Amino acid sequence: MIRTIDLNCDLGESFGAWRMGQDEAVLDWVTSANIACGFHAGDPPTMARTVRAAVARGVALGAHPSWPDLQGFGRRSMAVPPGEAHDLVLYQLGALAGFVRAAGGRLRHVKPHGSLYNQAACDPALAQAVAQAVRDFEASLILVGPSGSELIRAGRDEGLTCASEVFADRGYRPDGSLVPRSEPGALIEDPAASIARVLRMAREGLVVSTGGTDVAVQADTVCIHGDHPGAAGLARSLRQALAQAGIPVRALQG
Amino acid sequence: MIRTIDLNCDLGESFGAWRMGQDEAVLDWVTSANIACGFHAGDPPTMARTVRAAVARGVALGAHPSWPDLQGFGRRSMAVPPGEAHDLVLYQLGALAGFVRAAGGRLRHVKPHGSLYNQAACDPALAQAVAQAVRDFEASLILVGPSGSELIRAGRDEGLTCASEVFADRGYRPDGSLVPRSEPGALIEDPAASIARVLRMAREGLVVSTGGTDVAVQADTVCIHGDHPGAAGLARSLRQALAQAGIPVRALQG
Amino acid sequence: MIRTIDLNCDLGESFGAWRMGQDEAVLDWVTSANIACGFHAGDPPTMARTVRAAVARGVALGAHPSWPDLQGFGRRSMAVPPGEAHDLVLYQLGALAGFVRAAGGRLRHVKPHGSLYNQAACDPALAQAVAQAVRDFEASLILVGPSGSELIRAGRDEGLTCASEVFADRGYRPDGSLVPRSEPGALIEDPAASIARVLRMAREGLVVSTGGTDVAVQADTVCIHGDHPGAAGLARSLRQALAQAGIPVRALQG
Amino acid sequence: MIRTIDLNCDLGESFGAWRMGQDEAVLDWVTSANIACGFHAGDPPTMARTVRAAVARGVALGAHPSWPDLQGFGRRSMAVPPGEAHDLVLYQLGALAGFVRAAGGRLRHVKPHGSLYNQAACDPALAQAVAQAVRDFEASLILVGPSGSELIRAGRDEGLTCASEVFADRGYRPDGSLVPRSEPGALIEDPAASIARVLRMAREGLVVSTGGTDVAVQADTVCIHGDHPGAAGLARSLRQALAQAGIPVRALQG
Repeated sequence: MIRTIDLNCDLGESFGAWRMGQDEAVLDWVTSANIACGFHAGDPPTMARTVRAAVARGVALGAHPSWPDLQGFGRRSMAVPPGEAHDLVLYQLGALAGFVRAAGGRLRHVKPHGSLYNQAACDPALAQAVAQAVRDFEASLILVGPSGSELIRAGRDEGLTCASEVFADRGYRPDGSLVPRSEPGALIEDPAASIARVLRMAREGLVVSTGGTDVAVQADTVCIHGDHPGAAGLARSLRQALAQAGIPVRALQG
Repeated sequence: MIRTIDLNCDLGESFGAWRMGQDEAVLDWVTSANIACGFHAGDPPTMARTVRAAVARGVALGAHPSWPDLQGFGRRSMAVPPGEAHDLVLYQLGALAGFVRAAGGRLRHVKPHGSLYNQAACDPALAQAVAQAVRDFEASLILVGPSGSELIRAGRDEGLTCASEVFADRGYRPDGSLVPRSEPGALIEDPAASIARVLRMAREGLVVSTGGTDVAVQADTVCIHGDHPGAAGLARSLRQALAQAGIPVRALQG
Repeated sequence: MIRTIDLNCDLGESFGAWRMGQDEAVLDWVTSANIACGFHAGDPPTMARTVRAAVARGVALGAHPSWPDLQGFGRRSMAVPPGEAHDLVLYQLGALAGFVRAAGGRLRHVKPHGSLYNQAACDPALAQAVAQAVRDFEASLILVGPSGSELIRAGRDEGLTCASEVFADRGYRPDGSLVPRSEPGALIEDPAASIARVLRMAREGLVVSTGGTDVAVQADTVCIHGDHPGAAGLARSLRQALAQAGIPVRALQG
Repeated sequence: MIRTIDLNCDLGESFGAWRMGQDEAVLDWVTSANIACGFHAGDPPTMARTVRAAVARGVALGAHPSWPDLQGFGRRSMAVPPGEAHDLVLYQLGALAGFVRAAGGRLRHVKPHGSLYNQAACDPALAQAVAQAVRDFEASLILVGPSGSELIRAGRDEGLTCASEVFADRGYRPDGSLVPRSEPGALIEDPAASIARVLRMAREGLVVSTGGTDVAVQADTVCIHGDHPGAAGLARSLRQALAQAGIPVRALQG
């Protein structure tokens, strides 16, 4: 059996008068778009525009909910009770779904953003709250989380289809977690190395950790960081390399 | 043919640590709830709680979108281009609909809040933008606007079912518009007079204006102001008076 | 030598259309007002009004800066880098100082709010950032923090006059820290017991901890919680009890 | 007598993760910086950084207060009662002044931003509220407004030193007001024409209006739009042209 892989990117992260990312260029190469929902980025006109652009290219639409932290871009961890976190996520799913509906599209997946993603990866109560919000909104949505995380576990417990995410340009620790950005080895700077790592994760389910040992990862979808100048180029190279390796690139299937 | 009438109230206008209104008491007497969507009031947990309370009592659920103006409670007029206004409304409809879906309810109507309501009542381009947002989200939703307004006109042009709203406790000018709150005669302070006016609006489609002349109004739904200490009492009295007058009180029908 | 004691209360915590606290009543009995600066509560008109009310009664004016978290009322802990925390505090000190200057008053102290207070109590880097912001703004300001905390330590390191705060209605653990609100023994519900505890803290510098042992506390200022219905009553009783015990109640002296 | 002229630019308009303008490059050529205060742009770390950069180059520091409208970048007109507008301006002046004080600088002027500027230019009550906020904060501050506007008039009535602003790249109507951006002739696209116009405004106090007639303008300070890619280049050319014409370029004097 030939497995497929999805390429996802965070998009729609402009806000008001401020621009971020090269959404149009990236959309040509990814299969899934995680669209900001207004809490860390993405005012309503930006959301509308991004949804339409993704629909026009047949890219799968996903929500990218965040802590309410525009100034911190959703990257500051916050202690929010699980019940409130559930409601914050539900609010954002609904808000994005309005634009999806107006554009004649279909919401396919949910990937939490920034600190919400990182906190839900290791906090079971928060992970459950996020998974329940997704299920309460629409049980057929796919929940995207880091490979091996509490978020994936919670999603399965709630009966959701879950997709494990790997990162092309991030280092892994021997336990399968990401090297924090503040530590050496966090970033894989060489594009060729990134691509080689993704190919191996896709084919063998393994990546070399910072400890030198192989660590098992599940690679259902690969994250391209959209706020990078080279995002579109990396997405294209990765897509071509995967095609040459005989690994079909296509959006996640619920 | 016996016409029916709807009693609506703005609800869910608490925010974070701050409380406003006596939502539980008012919900016992109204047939429609206009629920704040986070832009002038109503953080996500408040929205979730309010939707559940309305569903539990069988009160029809409506969205109450606003300009983004928490500090001004959506009461300061803003010059927003129609395209952006469309997206602001669509965002809020979607956000509320998430909670409605999670609570197993159905979104029935949309009534703009505060300055958005007042501006859309007389600005045809803004009225059209609001009506299109409602239609783009769900063409079966009922649009609530002031009797005789541009908003009602735009809603009909977009093919929406529209409901004309009258106010129990507000004065009318000879042209059918409301007396601004800053002018004498804006408020009908006597509850008995309010009730008598509503009965006449419901039965005859007429109300005495500040000029002493009768003015024609269409009374599909009557607004109870929920931020009043006497809101629940007025809603109950009104409901009983309408029942005694043989005018069935029930939610708007699409 | 007779020591004096200060009674402080968090005030100006209304926001826009929402009201909180009985500021006018409490201002008659406290000697220091900690005024919200817009990040957890207190829009500009509320700040202006509260400053004027405090100046009119001769109550000492203090800033009550917070994390930027209106929806969570500044009570959700946030991971903000110390440099940013410094700037967030400096912004709020300046904003409040504008109203103080316009009212012809003088800013006397700074007491962080909610989670910023709690986090700075135990995080030395954050405590230093807060203390530096205070010093950078005005080195003669008094920094208020929990007795025995990192915040007091950091303030002294920066050369600030520091005031140790005790709570009339909160339980203490054997190590001198407050019992978290989520645990039993967090609140002293009986006003008479609260008053007796304050008297002993003021005279002997001791309070009975949840472990039954006495713990040493420094009581330069006592916090009255203003969002309580009984706040003004407790402030008055406490002030009278302190007077009867011969302990002068007056604002902190820099 | 040789008059001098000031070159001002709006700076510090980044926010959180989003960048705007080339502040460093522009600061080399202007004599006054109008620094965003957090309401339309400019989070606290951005404000701190911008103030320090201006102080380091000896550029005069001014506050650039706005309506509270981050998503609309302060460009959407809002109906705010004058008393509230006064408080919104005072808040922002104070907030910026905190960073100025911490950087060892001195606040010199205030120039309202966007719609606040445009509305205060023609609304006498709003103009008075703005002028009073400036005076209440510090009577020696210079108020910058459009030549011939209500804002200049109100500032003089409040006893403030006022500076009349002209625009290098905007068209003027025969009555001396700016051509709205939505109309033809709003922008002077040719840099050489811009410079020629400024020289004539500085020397003769005249500019050719869209009607073909000369209109009198007072040119105390010239605005360079900082959100332009060519802002630094225009500032440099203008500064050199003024120097060659023997018109000293220096900051406003209170």
